Amino acid sequence: MTNNQRAFNFNAGPAALPLEVLEKAKQEMTNFQDSGMSVMELSHRSPTYEAVHNGAIEKLRTLLEIPEDYEVLFLQGGASTQFTMIPMNFLQGSGKKAAYLMTGSWSEKAIAETKLFGEAYEATSSKSSQYRSIPDFSSNHLNGAEAYVHLTSNNTIYGTQWHEFPETGKVPLIADMSSDIMSRPIDVSKFDMIYAGAQKNLGPSGVTIVIIKKDLLKQAHSNVPTMLRYQTHVDKNSLYNTPPTFGIYMLGEVLNWIQDQGGLNSITEKNIRKANLIYKTIDESDGFYTGHAQQSSRSYMNITFNLPNEALEKQFLNEAKKAGFTGLNGHRSVGGCRASTYNAVPEATCVALSEFMQQFQHRNS
Amino acid sequence: MTNNQRAFNFNAGPAALPLEVLEKAKQEMTNFQDSGMSVMELSHRSPTYEAVHNGAIEKLRTLLEIPEDYEVLFLQGGASTQFTMIPMNFLQGSGKKAAYLMTGSWSEKAIAETKLFGEAYEATSSKSSQYRSIPDFSSNHLNGAEAYVHLTSNNTIYGTQWHEFPETGKVPLIADMSSDIMSRPIDVSKFDMIYAGAQKNLGPSGVTIVIIKKDLLKQAHSNVPTMLRYQTHVDKNSLYNTPPTFGIYMLGEVLNWIQDQGGLNSITEKNIRKANLIYKTIDESDGFYTGHAQQSSRSYMNITFNLPNEALEKQFLNEAKKAGFTGLNGHRSVGGCRASTYNAVPEATCVALSEFMQQFQHRNS
Repeated sequence: MTNNQRAFNFNAGPAALPLEVLEKAKQEMTNFQDSGMSVMELSHRSPTYEAVHNGAIEKLRTLLEIPEDYEVLFLQGGASTQFTMIPMNFLQGSGKKAAYLMTGSWSEKAIAETKLFGEAYEATSSKSSQYRSIPDFSSNHLNGAEAYVHLTSNNTIYGTQWHEFPETGKVPLIADMSSDIMSRPIDVSKFDMIYAGAQKNLGPSGVTIVIIKKDLLKQAHSNVPTMLRYQTHVDKNSLYNTPPTFGIYMLGEVLNWIQDQGGLNSITEKNIRKANLIYKTIDESDGFYTGHAQQSSRSYMNITFNLPNEALEKQFLNEAKKAGFTGLNGHRSVGGCRASTYNAVPEATCVALSEFMQQFQHRNS
Repeated sequence: MTNNQRAFNFNAGPAALPLEVLEKAKQEMTNFQDSGMSVMELSHRSPTYEAVHNGAIEKLRTLLEIPEDYEVLFLQGGASTQFTMIPMNFLQGSGKKAAYLMTGSWSEKAIAETKLFGEAYEATSSKSSQYRSIPDFSSNHLNGAEAYVHLTSNNTIYGTQWHEFPETGKVPLIADMSSDIMSRPIDVSKFDMIYAGAQKNLGPSGVTIVIIKKDLLKQAHSNVPTMLRYQTHVDKNSLYNTPPTFGIYMLGEVLNWIQDQGGLNSITEKNIRKANLIYKTIDESDGFYTGHAQQSSRSYMNITFNLPNEALEKQFLNEAKKAGFTGLNGHRSVGGCRASTYNAVPEATCVALSEFMQQFQHRNS
């Protein structure tokens, strides 16, 4: 490709970033804000870096309307590390059980780690129907004495998404929002903790965002190793040790870009429009394309679909690749096709895929 | 500063990166290897990224001459997370004690975490002399049944460095080399595990390198959470979850740069020459500048020194800042001055500091 050509990037994560942000990072690469240094070369204790760091926290607070009684942290290790940190901090020693709402592979990984630290149970699950839908759940499923309820807000592999979040009464609600954070407005006050890897909607991999209610922090187990204790990072504003400074800088720039797009209300409208272009192509294909997810549970981030048979799927993926589309393979564990249409995927890229899908069908049916 | 001016960067970490590497990253920012994407936008499961990932591992193996019976991992969370992972994997359940060789704040943090998982003791320490030297140690200090011996190869805060590593017989030797890895050739076979944050000599913050002997892996405790188990990352070639892909790409480019400089023999010669320029200035200052470290324990990475009084130190740091020097403040915990002269700090930058120090002395004595 020439320097100006950009791929049609449907990667599931790490994923497309806004071109404007990449261009800015490029421009500032050897001299950030007249410092004579790259942002990567700044001390994490310098005022120049601290402005980047605190700026990113403030932008996240503003755009997501995070209430004052929540802390915002930047950690490392991805959601997979949170699967361990959550029960270490909030289950072990509590004498309670944790309730997991099962919507796919990520929920399965999360509950498996939890069982190392205490009792966890599946309060609901759509596994028996291949995780095609968000399962029914109400607080009646709880006994009210759970340590917390955990859900995965969007399921990259199966292409489903919670469109309304459940009430859990006095039981803390913890959500893994790795694949849809900042793709839509949410009412943060309904959650006691939200966590997300940055590499879908928010920046490069290597930064984990944690939004945590101060009341929940007070319930944390005391005997947790320093780096695995949320309070460590709260006390030091995520500067207990060297944070992933470049990733946080990029995150801040992506947040600026979201603001420039009109904030989360505009972003979500655009995301729904983008996803619906592709869902419409599926729905109007007379069964040539079939969506994996039930309509009411469809994700606006990850569109999973199949073709009439595996041979056609293979041909579709090969031809798509030659036409400049990237990342359309389904997850290794389920096969098929998947288009991830995160915030930074341009609408024109979705139009191009929709047209390609129609042409492919025309040629092959 | 104008776009071509670079700061005299003596930051302790994150620290200076080679300008050539930053320029290459800049050039490839929106289109890596004709992919039409930034390296940050590649899937970590794509062949293009896997070549970056495996290329960085191979370069590290070649430059450090890592024997075949060692694994090379890229993790997250910095050395601080290793302080916990090491005893979780290799102390708990072993019925043994861990021996720590105490050379400063990082050793102190490492042993404190270890005590959460079992017994640890200080086999030697130079704390009583303000960590001015590397303390005496021989394997006679051990009872031979320790789980492991742990040392910090270079001490950023006090400016000391192990120049010869101790023999520990059959007891595994584990070293935190965060601040001097790849600054000199080492005999990897003397160690059972080496770990290092990348942000001093090797790239941006957010990548932790672990070099671990297969024999040691076999001794690991079985009941460790997935992300905190070394074997997890060995089994998946550090791709169990999404790695910090951009950081690993930068690490690979810094390794290419080290190779272009002539490898570790050339790098260490240059590093010694750079540090000695500043040590000579201290030693020939008739006591105006005094080094913190004893001569035989001096670090070639971090040069710690004081001026006759705190007022002069403050003035020195202020004037240095105005003259374009960055990062000369001593660590918050000890004060004074510190110049970190990692691999990517150009010799001319050290010459400039030496001259500035002489001129400052001339004006103020």
